[in-house]
Amino acid sequence: MSTYTPEDPNFVARVEGSFERQTFMQTLGASMTRVEPGFVSIEMPFQEALTQQHGFLHAGAVASIVDSACGYAALTLMPDDAAVLSVEFKVNMLSPAKGERMVAEGRVKKAGRTLMVCTGDVWAVTGEQRKNVMTMTATMMVVRGRGLKD
Amino acid sequence: MSTYTPEDPNFVARVEGSFERQTFMQTLGASMTRVEPGFVSIEMPFQEALTQQHGFLHAGAVASIVDSACGYAALTLMPDDAAVLSVEFKVNMLSPAKGERMVAEGRVKKAGRTLMVCTGDVWAVTGEQRKNVMTMTATMMVVRGRGLKD
Amino acid sequence: MSTYTPEDPNFVARVEGSFERQTFMQTLGASMTRVEPGFVSIEMPFQEALTQQHGFLHAGAVASIVDSACGYAALTLMPDDAAVLSVEFKVNMLSPAKGERMVAEGRVKKAGRTLMVCTGDVWAVTGEQRKNVMTMTATMMVVRGRGLKD
Amino acid sequence: MSTYTPEDPNFVARVEGSFERQTFMQTLGASMTRVEPGFVSIEMPFQEALTQQHGFLHAGAVASIVDSACGYAALTLMPDDAAVLSVEFKVNMLSPAKGERMVAEGRVKKAGRTLMVCTGDVWAVTGEQRKNVMTMTATMMVVRGRGLKD
Repeated sequence: MSTYTPEDPNFVARVEGSFERQTFMQTLGASMTRVEPGFVSIEMPFQEALTQQHGFLHAGAVASIVDSACGYAALTLMPDDAAVLSVEFKVNMLSPAKGERMVAEGRVKKAGRTLMVCTGDVWAVTGEQRKNVMTMTATMMVVRGRGLKD
Repeated sequence: MSTYTPEDPNFVARVEGSFERQTFMQTLGASMTRVEPGFVSIEMPFQEALTQQHGFLHAGAVASIVDSACGYAALTLMPDDAAVLSVEFKVNMLSPAKGERMVAEGRVKKAGRTLMVCTGDVWAVTGEQRKNVMTMTATMMVVRGRGLKD
Repeated sequence: MSTYTPEDPNFVARVEGSFERQTFMQTLGASMTRVEPGFVSIEMPFQEALTQQHGFLHAGAVASIVDSACGYAALTLMPDDAAVLSVEFKVNMLSPAKGERMVAEGRVKKAGRTLMVCTGDVWAVTGEQRKNVMTMTATMMVVRGRGLKD
Repeated sequence: MSTYTPEDPNFVARVEGSFERQTFMQTLGASMTRVEPGFVSIEMPFQEALTQQHGFLHAGAVASIVDSACGYAALTLMPDDAAVLSVEFKVNMLSPAKGERMVAEGRVKKAGRTLMVCTGDVWAVTGEQRKNVMTMTATMMVVRGRGLKD
């Protein structure tokens, strides 16, 4: 994989601080578990409150954590005065989202000055088992000078 | 637009009943406001609990209601022993998701026997104003005989 | 639909001139049939040379003309020193692409300063009949000052 | 990566035979270079006939070969009486498509009985250099008993 050198040496604290302001992640019970240059993982334990009609996790809840993982993977590589916005994402559902917890991994595939293309995967983890339940491709935008700051 | 004739005359009650079992929709504060052949709308009032780091609604929360709207639009046209599963969806974000409430509209664009293609839009509504904040295309699957029932 | 006012009053000639430089469109036998603010249509007659293994038009050939239709719809709204680049697109196939000719229509759904979101549809036309065979959502980028010019 | 066991021991000949019937691939000058269980690569030399207005390869031409690579990767795992149809695909453009030749690689990420999810990448190759210019996620359908055969 590509190796990236962040412009902002303080990127871990900046990304974690922004994640803490995503109130929706708290509503989902999600936590950020790894922050590396161009890579972020977010975990979400199974909760009844997040299910769809068959008792699986709702695709939207699962998509939410991998969207955040992709967005923050992009933010690790942005200058410290930039904000990140999701331009678009697509998810394919690979298996029903059931398991003890979901682990979303977001990776920067291409880091441009204005746009970053990211890929993400979500794994349903139960004990030692790990199953790929969703895959994402996303475009993230580097936003500067509009009064936004992550 | 196309006009559809549902196979199941009882489709409204069936779709509303399934929606009530989507616990995640309750967590989001979402309610189903219209159910018609090949069309469903879902509304979600603004809540601090659903925001991202800039105070807008998280794209994942917004995507969740339009995914459900598309899935249930598809379910209106399915036989009464079928279940609906999201195969994939893509969203483009058109504007920041801010406003008094979000109104998601899902429509069936092509109703096949196994797959249905849907399109969705989310409108941010504040008073009389209405702004398109997200657009979705989605593939929904008609699932029969796997022990699932919506 | 939205109505747009082009920044460049000369947009029709500029868009048509750029289309003529897309050699691939000539290879496909495609021609530009309408150019309006935020809207472009491109037609492609059926040709054996463009088919896949079942004798239908290859999805990639059909996607190509609607990608160009979306890109040029975006270009109608750009200043005269800008170039357009496709950032991403997604297509859903609705029916097999067979018929006398394909008519691709691209529309700007959201015109931003840096990015434009477009939607496109392709119709298979045979005599008086018209069938929707593909739908697209795409992100187009406004590129200035990199030595590119459409 | 996953390892797959094809149902049809004759899958290489079957996939290559189907590819030869994709007349559009010949129009593009494309050839199939590898066929393995769940994996196919297709190459296309640079040709003026395939360019867009800036002299790069048209995104639609590049998307066409990676769509075929993904579809045929799926076909390697299908029974010998099945046909493959593209349900949907999304591409993100990572860099301008310029170089001596394009190499598209398609991989099955999830092999279901009715649907297969594939990922693809296109590399621009010039001498020893190799650059990722496009990435795809796609859904392929296993079609049986409709009179289609690949």
